[in-house]
Amino acid sequence: MAIVLGANRYGKAEVRLVQVAGRDTGRHRLRDLDVSVTLAGDFAAAYTTGDNAAVLTTDAQKNAVYALAREHGVAAVETFALTLAAHFLAVETVTWARVHIAEHGWRRLGDHSFARDGTRQRLATVTTTAHATHVVSGVRGLTLLNTTDSQFRGFATDRFTTLTETDERILATDVDARWRHTAPPGIDWDASYRAATDALVDAFTGTYSHSLQHTLYAMGTAVLDGDAELAEIRLSLPNKHHFLVDLTPFGLDNPDEVYVATDRPYGLIEGTATRDDAVPAPDAW
Amino acid sequence: MAIVLGANRYGKAEVRLVQVAGRDTGRHRLRDLDVSVTLAGDFAAAYTTGDNAAVLTTDAQKNAVYALAREHGVAAVETFALTLAAHFLAVETVTWARVHIAEHGWRRLGDHSFARDGTRQRLATVTTTAHATHVVSGVRGLTLLNTTDSQFRGFATDRFTTLTETDERILATDVDARWRHTAPPGIDWDASYRAATDALVDAFTGTYSHSLQHTLYAMGTAVLDGDAELAEIRLSLPNKHHFLVDLTPFGLDNPDEVYVATDRPYGLIEGTATRDDAVPAPDAW
Amino acid sequence: MAIVLGANRYGKAEVRLVQVAGRDTGRHRLRDLDVSVTLAGDFAAAYTTGDNAAVLTTDAQKNAVYALAREHGVAAVETFALTLAAHFLAVETVTWARVHIAEHGWRRLGDHSFARDGTRQRLATVTTTAHATHVVSGVRGLTLLNTTDSQFRGFATDRFTTLTETDERILATDVDARWRHTAPPGIDWDASYRAATDALVDAFTGTYSHSLQHTLYAMGTAVLDGDAELAEIRLSLPNKHHFLVDLTPFGLDNPDEVYVATDRPYGLIEGTATRDDAVPAPDAW
Amino acid sequence: MAIVLGANRYGKAEVRLVQVAGRDTGRHRLRDLDVSVTLAGDFAAAYTTGDNAAVLTTDAQKNAVYALAREHGVAAVETFALTLAAHFLAVETVTWARVHIAEHGWRRLGDHSFARDGTRQRLATVTTTAHATHVVSGVRGLTLLNTTDSQFRGFATDRFTTLTETDERILATDVDARWRHTAPPGIDWDASYRAATDALVDAFTGTYSHSLQHTLYAMGTAVLDGDAELAEIRLSLPNKHHFLVDLTPFGLDNPDEVYVATDRPYGLIEGTATRDDAVPAPDAW
Repeated sequence: MAIVLGANRYGKAEVRLVQVAGRDTGRHRLRDLDVSVTLAGDFAAAYTTGDNAAVLTTDAQKNAVYALAREHGVAAVETFALTLAAHFLAVETVTWARVHIAEHGWRRLGDHSFARDGTRQRLATVTTTAHATHVVSGVRGLTLLNTTDSQFRGFATDRFTTLTETDERILATDVDARWRHTAPPGIDWDASYRAATDALVDAFTGTYSHSLQHTLYAMGTAVLDGDAELAEIRLSLPNKHHFLVDLTPFGLDNPDEVYVATDRPYGLIEGTATRDDAVPAPDAW
Repeated sequence: MAIVLGANRYGKAEVRLVQVAGRDTGRHRLRDLDVSVTLAGDFAAAYTTGDNAAVLTTDAQKNAVYALAREHGVAAVETFALTLAAHFLAVETVTWARVHIAEHGWRRLGDHSFARDGTRQRLATVTTTAHATHVVSGVRGLTLLNTTDSQFRGFATDRFTTLTETDERILATDVDARWRHTAPPGIDWDASYRAATDALVDAFTGTYSHSLQHTLYAMGTAVLDGDAELAEIRLSLPNKHHFLVDLTPFGLDNPDEVYVATDRPYGLIEGTATRDDAVPAPDAW
Repeated sequence: MAIVLGANRYGKAEVRLVQVAGRDTGRHRLRDLDVSVTLAGDFAAAYTTGDNAAVLTTDAQKNAVYALAREHGVAAVETFALTLAAHFLAVETVTWARVHIAEHGWRRLGDHSFARDGTRQRLATVTTTAHATHVVSGVRGLTLLNTTDSQFRGFATDRFTTLTETDERILATDVDARWRHTAPPGIDWDASYRAATDALVDAFTGTYSHSLQHTLYAMGTAVLDGDAELAEIRLSLPNKHHFLVDLTPFGLDNPDEVYVATDRPYGLIEGTATRDDAVPAPDAW
Repeated sequence: MAIVLGANRYGKAEVRLVQVAGRDTGRHRLRDLDVSVTLAGDFAAAYTTGDNAAVLTTDAQKNAVYALAREHGVAAVETFALTLAAHFLAVETVTWARVHIAEHGWRRLGDHSFARDGTRQRLATVTTTAHATHVVSGVRGLTLLNTTDSQFRGFATDRFTTLTETDERILATDVDARWRHTAPPGIDWDASYRAATDALVDAFTGTYSHSLQHTLYAMGTAVLDGDAELAEIRLSLPNKHHFLVDLTPFGLDNPDEVYVATDRPYGLIEGTATRDDAVPAPDAW
């Protein structure tokens, strides 16, 4: 019944990297990234005896992010994450490396001017070992709302059910979606990301919704339908409730016009769409 | 040396109102507002003796926001704030009313579908008494960045100055700007807002900057230059520092390419541009 | 009708300073501060022509915070703010300096170990010119709750009033209070702060409340009653609503037991208690 | 290669429940909880065809939280989570239920008065199926700091290592720890929580640290050593960096006195301490 060290990993989180490319062309390009590195391997002695001989410092990990950005440039976030992950896996004591990148969007205003483009972030997570490398792309902070074409009917009821059925409601969510690549050579990561996010948006706006679950699955299948290279997609969608305000105490009707948007609680709907022949890869997430 | 009640006011903050208009047309319009109401007047007894006879409850203030949205609709935020402020000033015990509205932007995706449009908020503050009504419009959360055309030289130095002069730096800020209208009848508030924010963006991107102070004043004058109806504009601009990373320890140069964006501390530059014949209105803010 | 520069100021915000004192004694003391500096003076040329000759850089301001912490130590935040403000006022081009400090609390666990003590922050704001120096102390993030001894009755009603009177409700708030010193020599700032916050807490818990306004004024007068040196106190108190949940649909009563705490909207009550012979000092705030 | 529905679950997140008990005794007790419910089971049709017949609404889940709080009271969060989880598992279509509770602490000020006790939250997660029920307790937001007894030496170096060894540094972290119970009948959950958090604090303050990894493992083993009922503990510890400020440009030394606390990036150290005979329970987390 001894106490032993179990699963462990460490790294540097949220390295803020802003890269300006194209200075020679007069048409600057901007990349604005939060990079997080996590490593596992032969690090038990650091935990159990305070022996740091195997530990690559998190400070050096941070430095590597900046230096490799200079050496290799920052193309798509997936490409840069692959470069970083391969670098860290090459460290002798590292057997598992994960690089997660969140990219903040900027809208171009001119050759060297930009405006921050909302709360939407593009995501890439690369996980690598000697045996396999997984690439997961994603998006979060993409807030969508339909003012109609959403009903919620025919649900189960129990002692605590007071909600009434509705044929007309606002449907709104903050999309958090991650999709796993089978990663053949030569992917155009930027095009893949645009196609996936376009599919998410089109499915959300184009689906007559019977529930947020229903919309979620339509969004997931639309992404996979549009890109045969993808194995699966996971979505986590908060139901951002908008309740019609009861104005009858004030002698007023409210024909689906005036709503209160609430913060908490919120529904949280999670689901996966997957190809039935996809090889599962739980280690990719 | 008695202790007495000084300045006081109260109200309901952050009433979340989402309004859908145009349902009859098939082309829905969406307004997403945080409305805050603040009242002053003959409320001393509530503070000093616990006598609430003069107090209009903040719950009733919230209800009024929703009901008046239904009765009057929500056109420009300035118009709705004027409607609300007039309503509250008509309460017998109220001698001063302020309505502050922050509008969250949504980008249209279709006839009844929308995507949240970033962190930029449109602001309106209406302050009214029996003697005067002031309208201040504004914007916050507008994040702008230039990758060049920014230098910082010729500054004063003291014992604690270690910063070196630079001919080339990233300039980035989150614009918080508020401009005061002289408010003649018939203003097109939406057009005024678009013109002001366009002027802010154009001045930021078009100015060769000698400092953020320099850029701030260029932004302020651009807004006033473009709209003779405006009396003054106040800007508060954080200097969102981007520092070039020193890569020489790794044998690398860094020709204005790889930066770290820092969170804290940050410079904070504030300034006002005003017409020299504007009648001051400190009560508007 | 020329456009001219109006009020302007600038500085460095949120300099994070952690100071360890008493290393020689074995009993370490910890100060954890966010320091913000704001300066005004002869800086118009920076705004209007891009001439920085008068500008003390915000980077040098940050350096001064750290260096003066080493030279003078960090005793009470008011003392350190006075030291910093005097330093900056001595700069030739500066005619007005404000130093605002927020101190994060740590609870001692041992001679050199500490646990962060909640969200409560101690505040000090020193504003200085050639003619006057003002010291304002304060607290924010102090969240208090009474489960009883709070009613709300006898309020005004209008067309939009649906709230019913109550003899029993939860009263909860996040205290934001600032009090102005007359600042005679030799104040024990730490003792003054403890007395003021104790008075705030005791008045909140000991007052049978007829409204949050009523409680606010009791809190303000308690602070002034307890310290003759203070001229006035300003309080801003959100009414953190706790609503009794209606359990009757489930065949249950709810005898003041189960509540929902809501985020938005919230009441916001503001008020001042002042000595009737206090010399007003609007520039102190 | 059809697209199919994979793993899915849904529920209501962040139900805000405040419960006042002991009103009959005059000595009130306060519980302030965020409750999140997640369910899995026979819900595929809702996703794939929009058929909601099996769906228990998230609104009914919210209602159940409030109603069961009234029916059963709220003792320890683990007890309440067990009650809720059993209730939801009894729903015909539910095969897996998880209830996660975060409790906000309040410090008693009197018989019916309380002050919010910092950012520390007590956590409980109960996961239940027909076959097993797991209880995980935890704490987050517990911020600890040692001003000495921390070194970092003897680490690996690579091309990107610039960090120098140190015998003296500040060590600070926000503890996020979760421990899994073997859950024999009759546990005193409150006593167990106090013992675990005391062990975490004592191990942090009492360990001469060779790295945050080293301290993490000391904390984990201390918790297991103190409570034979616990199977394993997982810790996630950010390294909240405090860097000594270089004051030599100003002619000053800095004998471990003046530090800057940085926000990002931060080290993130994760690890598990487990009994070597513990039956693994990956589904508990």
